[in-house]
Amino acid sequence: MLQIPALEKLVHELSKLPGIGPKTAQRLAYYILKNKDTYPEKLKEGLERVQAEVHECPHCFNFTDSDLCIYCEDPGRRNDLICVVEEPSDIARIESSGAYQGRYHVLHGALSPLEGVGPEQLKLKELMTRLETEDIKEVILALDSDLEGDTTVLYISRLVHGKGIRISRIAQGVPIGSDIDYIDERTMGRALQNRVEI
Amino acid sequence: MLQIPALEKLVHELSKLPGIGPKTAQRLAYYILKNKDTYPEKLKEGLERVQAEVHECPHCFNFTDSDLCIYCEDPGRRNDLICVVEEPSDIARIESSGAYQGRYHVLHGALSPLEGVGPEQLKLKELMTRLETEDIKEVILALDSDLEGDTTVLYISRLVHGKGIRISRIAQGVPIGSDIDYIDERTMGRALQNRVEI
Repeated sequence: MLQIPALEKLVHELSKLPGIGPKTAQRLAYYILKNKDTYPEKLKEGLERVQAEVHECPHCFNFTDSDLCIYCEDPGRRNDLICVVEEPSDIARIESSGAYQGRYHVLHGALSPLEGVGPEQLKLKELMTRLETEDIKEVILALDSDLEGDTTVLYISRLVHGKGIRISRIAQGVPIGSDIDYIDERTMGRALQNRVEI
Repeated sequence: MLQIPALEKLVHELSKLPGIGPKTAQRLAYYILKNKDTYPEKLKEGLERVQAEVHECPHCFNFTDSDLCIYCEDPGRRNDLICVVEEPSDIARIESSGAYQGRYHVLHGALSPLEGVGPEQLKLKELMTRLETEDIKEVILALDSDLEGDTTVLYISRLVHGKGIRISRIAQGVPIGSDIDYIDERTMGRALQNRVEI
């Protein structure tokens, strides 16, 4: 449609990014072209630095540019609490709440038989090794509230049961600031079921 | 906030793209990191090809990877009609209508005294040269319907008047498929003013 193969290639690559459809990708590509003398070099530099410097923390599999990630290195955090998340980006969300001061473990995904993601594709073996070698008292599962998250919660809870370690999942319920009118029936059901005495 | 300078640099560069805020840029950067072994190379290749192959057509200033752009080269298009647009991306929109078979001229912007864009920053001198050397009968201004577009329309119409060349602007009115209820008052005013006898 653009009839310039190099431009089509760039649009094709940009449209692989999450949430970027072909129309948006085209708009981004035109911006890049308009700033051809300055922007592509800077973006390439950004990509190269990330490729060269950022890797997974060998302990918790968060992203880091040091030997260990900042949460594994921090001596001020509790060593007996481990919070399991699907993606490194989930950690920022949890940290922003200020409500957690333990360690993390990133699975890099969730179980999804339909998409061919089994336990071997996730950092589950590494989680079990940590539970056996570190002095963990509680595992908090902060996984997505979807089918894959639910499946993974079930799978991990079976692995952990009987090891004398508490296991919990972050609460599912009505979001703060939300209007009851707009809450779906499953969330409402869960919020009623998990009601908290006041 | 991400505490990894390389990642922050990438987020910073991505958030320069139009319509990409810091949150979206972070999501894109995490996708890039997740696919660090394959995706950055492909995106870099896309950027490099665009840098190396795509340039402005020396005649109409559309983007091209040949000597002239496809619209300047096409022998089947009318030579006496020239459509003036702000950006190369506007051409695709006009072409998709199938309603135009003439030549193009890309200004690469619109007059904006507030942003320091004067006539010298646009391909206006080049437009005037074309009007003097080519056998043009009508200039169609397909500029944005905003203050900058209006200013540029006025400026060009003054330049062209008295040269014996027809000058027109694409119609402003109610978009096809739109609900009258949602039309703003200025569009409605223009649509009434420019009503077409049936």
